[in-house]
Amino acid sequence: MTFALRPARRLYPQLSAYTVVQYRTIKEHTLKNAGWERVIPALRSVCGDDGVSLSEAVREQHGRDESVHRCCPPDVVVWPRSVEEVSALAKICHHHRLPIIPFGTGTGLEGGVGAVKGGVCFSLRNMDRVLDLHQEDFDVTVEPGVTRKGLNSYLRDTGLWFPVDPGADASLCGMAATSASGTNAVRYGTMRENVLNLEVVLADGTIIHTAGRGRRTRKTSAGYNLTNLFVGSEGTLGLITKTTLRLYGVPEAVVSAVCTFPSVQAAVDSTVQILQAGVPIARIEFLDDVMMNACNSFNSLSYPVAPTLFLEFHGTENSLEEQVTVTEEITRDNGGSDFSWARDAETRGRLWKARHDAWYASLALRPGCKAYSTDVCVPLSLLPQIIVETKKDLVLNRITGPIAGHVGDGNFHCILVLDPDDQEEVTRVHEFTERLARRALALNGTCTGEHGVGLGKRALLREEMGPQVIEVMQGLKATLDPKNIMNPGKVL
Amino acid sequence: MTFALRPARRLYPQLSAYTVVQYRTIKEHTLKNAGWERVIPALRSVCGDDGVSLSEAVREQHGRDESVHRCCPPDVVVWPRSVEEVSALAKICHHHRLPIIPFGTGTGLEGGVGAVKGGVCFSLRNMDRVLDLHQEDFDVTVEPGVTRKGLNSYLRDTGLWFPVDPGADASLCGMAATSASGTNAVRYGTMRENVLNLEVVLADGTIIHTAGRGRRTRKTSAGYNLTNLFVGSEGTLGLITKTTLRLYGVPEAVVSAVCTFPSVQAAVDSTVQILQAGVPIARIEFLDDVMMNACNSFNSLSYPVAPTLFLEFHGTENSLEEQVTVTEEITRDNGGSDFSWARDAETRGRLWKARHDAWYASLALRPGCKAYSTDVCVPLSLLPQIIVETKKDLVLNRITGPIAGHVGDGNFHCILVLDPDDQEEVTRVHEFTERLARRALALNGTCTGEHGVGLGKRALLREEMGPQVIEVMQGLKATLDPKNIMNPGKVL
Repeated sequence: MTFALRPARRLYPQLSAYTVVQYRTIKEHTLKNAGWERVIPALRSVCGDDGVSLSEAVREQHGRDESVHRCCPPDVVVWPRSVEEVSALAKICHHHRLPIIPFGTGTGLEGGVGAVKGGVCFSLRNMDRVLDLHQEDFDVTVEPGVTRKGLNSYLRDTGLWFPVDPGADASLCGMAATSASGTNAVRYGTMRENVLNLEVVLADGTIIHTAGRGRRTRKTSAGYNLTNLFVGSEGTLGLITKTTLRLYGVPEAVVSAVCTFPSVQAAVDSTVQILQAGVPIARIEFLDDVMMNACNSFNSLSYPVAPTLFLEFHGTENSLEEQVTVTEEITRDNGGSDFSWARDAETRGRLWKARHDAWYASLALRPGCKAYSTDVCVPLSLLPQIIVETKKDLVLNRITGPIAGHVGDGNFHCILVLDPDDQEEVTRVHEFTERLARRALALNGTCTGEHGVGLGKRALLREEMGPQVIEVMQGLKATLDPKNIMNPGKVL
Repeated sequence: MTFALRPARRLYPQLSAYTVVQYRTIKEHTLKNAGWERVIPALRSVCGDDGVSLSEAVREQHGRDESVHRCCPPDVVVWPRSVEEVSALAKICHHHRLPIIPFGTGTGLEGGVGAVKGGVCFSLRNMDRVLDLHQEDFDVTVEPGVTRKGLNSYLRDTGLWFPVDPGADASLCGMAATSASGTNAVRYGTMRENVLNLEVVLADGTIIHTAGRGRRTRKTSAGYNLTNLFVGSEGTLGLITKTTLRLYGVPEAVVSAVCTFPSVQAAVDSTVQILQAGVPIARIEFLDDVMMNACNSFNSLSYPVAPTLFLEFHGTENSLEEQVTVTEEITRDNGGSDFSWARDAETRGRLWKARHDAWYASLALRPGCKAYSTDVCVPLSLLPQIIVETKKDLVLNRITGPIAGHVGDGNFHCILVLDPDDQEEVTRVHEFTERLARRALALNGTCTGEHGVGLGKRALLREEMGPQVIEVMQGLKATLDPKNIMNPGKVL
């Protein structure tokens, strides 16, 4: 059994060159020593001929996510149907020292699925059962093929929902792996706060349940918190095959609002005061003037081109009235104007369309270009400063980068729109992202609030954490994955 | 330099016999090889003559918490004044392979501070600064000497507070170490959800900041979640010297209530429905008939002797009205009666007195006896079943064990009142606690919702997690503490 190796498609060589060292060399070395002649039949014996693919198109499709990181196709893609199959496949990889790369929906933003050292991509989409829904206990267990929208559609008639919403219709196990969050985090928390238990296949094929098999209590003090060690580990410590999640009651009523501000400071001041007033706001999203302009053009809207907050309130009819009154008062005191409020689903949809389409509106600013999203997060009070400095930097360096942010968490994204064939621009954008990350670090912030480290932020992670912490992380990685086969080349 | 070794006071030999293996042998061995003649002057050179004590009384005072686990005094107690001193002391212990036992306020309930293998107790009460309060960002950093009440008193004029409330006025760093929670967890979460960063001294004296030095963002996806690995590690992975905490706005208004139910099932059904209705209840505490009787006697109250819920609502005046209305309707539908509501602080205090005094009321049932609190936690819907079975077990085995529970989390405590000198009773109670824990495990629950594993639940932890998970935990422990000097004999 042999198959040709196609050179990785180099989409943005310079932007991501620093992230992938000796790509081809390592991969060829792996291949030569892996004994594929024995490996492929072994993989097929576990998940059938249909469950193993060496096709170039399939491999390429599994070598990239939605980021600008170049495609790194795995050597082979497998589709296990159960945790036992995942375990059996992992044992084969472990024996042959082959990299294991978990693949959910491929909607990540930091190159987490790229097979930078070759190896076996585990596509988990065929494991797509919703298991053990406990309505009274507000919990459910899902397999990796179940997406966020899929689960909420399954829950439709139960009065329950899962609120963590990163935008993409991502796999919930993938969201656990990358510690995803998104627009609802200000009220409902991130994956860290909403995962109760994980089933994980370790590098050697051992199956564990991080909180013990079947456990699904709302809280526990039983031993080390392995659940939250695997949440956010981006596939580098193990492969998540089940996630037990907290659910919430669907709110009785929802109100949305949009409000324009004279300055970034005024928008953020309003946010702080709304939170301080104890308004249990569900979403509070910031869009800068550049983004508002992009959204207006993209959707033929006519919002004022100014710093803007998009808000959403969840609660009972009565409590919403109060939330809205308090919020309106606070925003008005900070110079907010051009309020639009919406109660019914359709008007709310129209209102939020601008925010939801921010990515595509940004891309439409320069047709034919690609986008990369930064992801810094700082303490709330420092948000105006970093946004103002960043906007100056964008102008000075002639970079298209409309801003959208989860302002209640201090997390914002510059959607950098660039021509990947323009080397000079790629360099300019890359240098900008590094400056932005360092600006966040200098303000007690992080280089990644919700997208993860993946390929591109490993050097920044070292700066953010310091060498001692990195050493601890490396120690944990070496303990759980001594052969370094779990999604190698990521995070650390 | 020599000093006499006093045999550990054996309060409850049989109850805790299984937790401490070869206590004296290991301790004498440690002593003989430690070279105390060189160690003590070295410790003194770091924190002064006043900062090191070999006094029998002091050692004994630091060898026990509030549990029934027997006192295991350390060989020496030190009082570092800074993280640098903690680090220097840890290096000495590391060099001599001496156990390091962190000591906050000694208010733990699972024997976590006992020096079961001798060694050096690090009393951290002299590090008592509140650092870096950021009001706009809702965060603060505290040293280990700062207690929960101390912090809230410091915050009095800021409009902010820290809500996690385990009852005792515990050290906040100690609360992080044991993953504490308590009555407010149903609304505000446990320490796991409220710690943003930790400064930790590792076994070899290395100082790390789990989320990177100075970082205090509301969320992060930067690398492995070391913060939550150390939260709940009970001093076995490192020594917490600073904790950065999330703060909350003080609620505009508070309303308390007490309500009586015809059965445990009715009380728990009400709880589920209140949560399902989205009422953001701040506290919902269950007391069984035995506990109500104890509280009535202790405080000369006249509550009905029946399953009872104590409730607390936080919010604006307007939202409280709605919360109260919805709750009253739900409880009434479930047969709730004898409502008492209270708005002003004094009446609320009187109302909650029964709940707050539950521990002492239980002890007063049998003057001269001691109490031990169980701590199982199960999914909410299984709470009635386990409470009913447990109450039968208590009656059948003639054990005094009034029940109080954080019913919104599925976590409840039997306050077992026993005569420690009655061997037969000690055995009977011990067997009961094991049965109760196994009952919880059979219902997808945990043996410890908030007190931790400490000394007494290590065997149960193994049952709860299974051998593979324990092996992973042991691997992490060995990585971070290869000489096994961090609070040895606990958790694993």
